[in-house]
Amino acid sequence: MPEPKELMRLAIDVARQGMADGQTPFGCAIAVGDLVIATAHNTVLADINITAHAEINALRAACQALGNIHLSGTIVASTCEPCPMCAAALHWARVDHIYFGATVSDAATSGFNELRLSASELLNRGGSSVKLTGNVLSGECQDLFRQWHAQGDSRAY
Amino acid sequence: MPEPKELMRLAIDVARQGMADGQTPFGCAIAVGDLVIATAHNTVLADINITAHAEINALRAACQALGNIHLSGTIVASTCEPCPMCAAALHWARVDHIYFGATVSDAATSGFNELRLSASELLNRGGSSVKLTGNVLSGECQDLFRQWHAQGDSRAY
Repeated sequence: MPEPKELMRLAIDVARQGMADGQTPFGCAIAVGDLVIATAHNTVLADINITAHAEINALRAACQALGNIHLSGTIVASTCEPCPMCAAALHWARVDHIYFGATVSDAATSGFNELRLSASELLNRGGSSVKLTGNVLSGECQDLFRQWHAQGDSRAY
Repeated sequence: MPEPKELMRLAIDVARQGMADGQTPFGCAIAVGDLVIATAHNTVLADINITAHAEINALRAACQALGNIHLSGTIVASTCEPCPMCAAALHWARVDHIYFGATVSDAATSGFNELRLSASELLNRGGSSVKLTGNVLSGECQDLFRQWHAQGDSRAY
């Protein structure tokens, strides 16, 4: 299993690729054992699909890679704390452990129309057994928002 | 604008089409003005994609139909109360009003691994302005679960 920080570096890299392509600053990577099975950035604007967050895209790719709707034993790195849509999707997929960098509050500060509900509150209140750890390379992940604003095309939604 | 019950009948019809095709008993329809812009059933099993709930599929189709990630002014009928993933997706899409039939509790009783969080709790706690109304043709919507179990292929997940 890659270290969470290693996996997060892949999530940060793919988020940067997305930003270079005009997308918003979010990336996600999923691994099982030593194998990275999915990396994806947000494609909401490119696909004109409000559901195409990085985690949703990565989950779809990971299900395809394993040929299974359930991803037991996988770990997930997300540059930003999963929003309730993505946290619930990760619960449905039965991933083992979610690591994140920046917070929903950071994303809201950057202009995104976030529901004000943390991933831990969603998972705890909902009774999920998915494990969650924040503050993984959070400085680098927060930098993604600053770089995105500095690019001048800051279409938050 | 179609009446919520009319739109729910379309959601029930498309859920039945999904069940005839081996899918789980969930359907969703979205309208703006007099125009129905999307109907979709759950395709989690067919697509091997844990995120392919009826509402997620319908939102993607609706965004495509309008060429817009935001669906202001639309109404949504879902045969089952949206799970937190779908309720949050509907918030992101800025739909106007969600109507639902059966409840998350009904789905859990049918074997689905639901987070125990109602759509109203999610939207209220998160500070969403999306309106939500349950108990629309709820008997017919609950019947979908019974019909699905009676079919004998009841792969809840």
